[in-house]
Amino acid sequence: MSKKPSIPKGTRDFNPEEVSRRNYIFNTIKETFSLYGFQPIETPSFENSETLMGKYGEEGDRLIFKILNSGDYLSKVDDKLYSEKDSNKITSTISEKALRYDLTVPFARYVVQHQNEITFPFKRYQIQPVWRADRPQKGRFREFFQCDADVVGSTSLWQEVEFVQLYDAVFSKLNLKGVTIKINNRKILSGIAETIGAEDKLIDFTVALDKLDKIGEEGVKKEMREKGISEDALQKLQPLFSLNGTASEQLKKLKALLSNSKIGIQGVEELEFITDNIETLGLQTASLQIDVTLARGLNYYTGAIFEVSAPKEVNMGSIGGGGRYDDLTGIFGLKDMSGVGISFGLDRIYLVLEELNLFPETVSDNSKALFINFGEKEALYAMKAISKLRIAGIKAELYPDATKMGKQMGYADKRNIAFAILAGEKEMEAQSFTLKNMKSGEQTQMDFSELETFLKN
Amino acid sequence: MSKKPSIPKGTRDFNPEEVSRRNYIFNTIKETFSLYGFQPIETPSFENSETLMGKYGEEGDRLIFKILNSGDYLSKVDDKLYSEKDSNKITSTISEKALRYDLTVPFARYVVQHQNEITFPFKRYQIQPVWRADRPQKGRFREFFQCDADVVGSTSLWQEVEFVQLYDAVFSKLNLKGVTIKINNRKILSGIAETIGAEDKLIDFTVALDKLDKIGEEGVKKEMREKGISEDALQKLQPLFSLNGTASEQLKKLKALLSNSKIGIQGVEELEFITDNIETLGLQTASLQIDVTLARGLNYYTGAIFEVSAPKEVNMGSIGGGGRYDDLTGIFGLKDMSGVGISFGLDRIYLVLEELNLFPETVSDNSKALFINFGEKEALYAMKAISKLRIAGIKAELYPDATKMGKQMGYADKRNIAFAILAGEKEMEAQSFTLKNMKSGEQTQMDFSELETFLKN
Repeated sequence: MSKKPSIPKGTRDFNPEEVSRRNYIFNTIKETFSLYGFQPIETPSFENSETLMGKYGEEGDRLIFKILNSGDYLSKVDDKLYSEKDSNKITSTISEKALRYDLTVPFARYVVQHQNEITFPFKRYQIQPVWRADRPQKGRFREFFQCDADVVGSTSLWQEVEFVQLYDAVFSKLNLKGVTIKINNRKILSGIAETIGAEDKLIDFTVALDKLDKIGEEGVKKEMREKGISEDALQKLQPLFSLNGTASEQLKKLKALLSNSKIGIQGVEELEFITDNIETLGLQTASLQIDVTLARGLNYYTGAIFEVSAPKEVNMGSIGGGGRYDDLTGIFGLKDMSGVGISFGLDRIYLVLEELNLFPETVSDNSKALFINFGEKEALYAMKAISKLRIAGIKAELYPDATKMGKQMGYADKRNIAFAILAGEKEMEAQSFTLKNMKSGEQTQMDFSELETFLKN
Repeated sequence: MSKKPSIPKGTRDFNPEEVSRRNYIFNTIKETFSLYGFQPIETPSFENSETLMGKYGEEGDRLIFKILNSGDYLSKVDDKLYSEKDSNKITSTISEKALRYDLTVPFARYVVQHQNEITFPFKRYQIQPVWRADRPQKGRFREFFQCDADVVGSTSLWQEVEFVQLYDAVFSKLNLKGVTIKINNRKILSGIAETIGAEDKLIDFTVALDKLDKIGEEGVKKEMREKGISEDALQKLQPLFSLNGTASEQLKKLKALLSNSKIGIQGVEELEFITDNIETLGLQTASLQIDVTLARGLNYYTGAIFEVSAPKEVNMGSIGGGGRYDDLTGIFGLKDMSGVGISFGLDRIYLVLEELNLFPETVSDNSKALFINFGEKEALYAMKAISKLRIAGIKAELYPDATKMGKQMGYADKRNIAFAILAGEKEMEAQSFTLKNMKSGEQTQMDFSELETFLKN
């Protein structure tokens, strides 16, 4: 093979700096999950196909990566089926496993499979890669990590309150100020549809409303008219287009609008519980905002709906989202297990931190010092020092070969190692080391304990 | 779907305790890698099939998990080929990607692909899962993590010295005493084969020698005779069967035995460099032992060969291994790039630590305190305290529902949370909290700052 090797489209190699920066985000999220009482689980990268297929709609089924059975897989395909040469029909016979498409369905499978070992309410987090055979494009990959936290087994709204705090805590720790946590409730959307007599058009109606930001009030109304929503209904909707003021002012308007819908009022009350308590408890740097146009994952969510937007100065869609679903595990036969969860968009958060220059300089865990190699005797002298430094927790290394000084210094430079340590015959005699600051060029002679103290800081 | 869901054979779910214990091992290894100047990289879970196929022998090719192409994959199979219904022949047409089988080949691919961005010598570590369609059995899985550290771009033997130290450092930190690091050199095996005039039987000869532990001296000789190794050759080999004493005594005997083999002497001198320097530098808890019967990965290694054995009291094969290979990247067209690397066997290390009861109790990152939920007002009072505790880095949570006290206490018990905190009307009035030790049952009343101080320790 003489042509330069490559990787499949939509996948990525991560170099040391990228890994360190990604881990900085992962670790911040993990620490916060754990601070909030969530515990980690991990599930296999591939699941039995029957666990995944049919859970994400037709489009989702197409985007699931299927794994070919091992051995003579074609021998199990009967000749009649084989002769049709129909990829769709043959797939389930030659592939019994598939790469996980998200973390939610494997989590539901986990809860049902291990229900007798789990203490409910079960607060779990999971940070693992998922795979989708999507068309790759800027910011969309075929392999990417999801970071999810969910609680199942309780309908308490305190959990929604905690998730708002959790978002605020993570982004505050990442020093990403100005994040907006938008919140809605599926029951409010149902209530609006009920109020305007368009229950059957709930999807059309929310899809149109969701575009308010982009196409404006008139655009939304035009689309609604096209979908057959009456002028009378649009009239009733009018307050939605001028829903501003504080949270409690907005909730008051919604209560008036939805006064005849039981489910709508319930949605408003749920929202009220969350916004009231968050107001009392306070947030560090994020702000919470009611957004009745928010409809993500509508088929899925039954209560609260969350979405997090990056600060306005960066042009980036949502960097997190989630909501409550009343029947997550029903697909695997375990009924009445309400859950609520959120997730963080790692790749987008990475881009935001990069754009705003928010990665701390200390993120990459680089060696503090490179010992220059002057030959076998000197290298042993250096290795004695290095061994002691490492036991003291100081990252140091020896240049492995006794090559030209310039090459060794160049290596320290390129690796961004802050100090070079020179120990030749003279230093060995004096039981000392010459420390060179790679930036300033300044050189200082010191004994081992001075060196250790210096590098420790 | 009413039957209980399951996962593919050879794969595993990990519960919170298992994840925490695995992370304890991973983090210890990562910290040590980083202390030794290694930097992390990550590669995609799947590679182009051509990157992997043909790199692990015929058996390896069979064990690689292949991913089915998306869409109407059969339409690309021409009718003649299709009519043969031969799985082997069709695979490369309907599958262009495959799950990574190890971390070594993807690393070689990475080095060649990114050679212009990399500063050599390149010290990288990589901790990621790999997949093999092996028959699952006790301790062998279809998905498992590898933990590898390698240096490429230098032939310096100091790296071998450092890897011995690194093994010692990791196992010492894990408090696993009595580990044996066995070392050999491929050149010594070649030298022996040369000395006894059996260069063409190198593999047969080393495979037999490798069994010395299991089948004893006579067994090994019998197998060698069966493979056509002469009595005269066996006579010359005799010193190998009584190779004991200190490292320098063994090396002296080997030098005598291999005096007429240039490559053999070179191997002995390389071993000598490593054992001498390790003796001078010292190890913390492990011991280094020359083992000329060690032949793992013979087709692959060209210099040092390492293998790490668990302490004798546990019956577990090797828990780590590695060696030097002179032409890792040659398969992708980059010649003369010598490398040396080691790996840690995560699953076996886990079993050893479990058997010897060496996991620290503090490994699982559990909540320190559960606040009992007495109703809406009390919960808000609790949440105010919890929010402040979390900002101070203390893991605490609120039971989400105001259910019976017994149920909430039971939850704290099952989750192994050490303290329950009760704050009802009485405590709210006194601006205090009642802390209950879940083990002793002892209750103490304290104000918030006392509570914070108490939980911080």
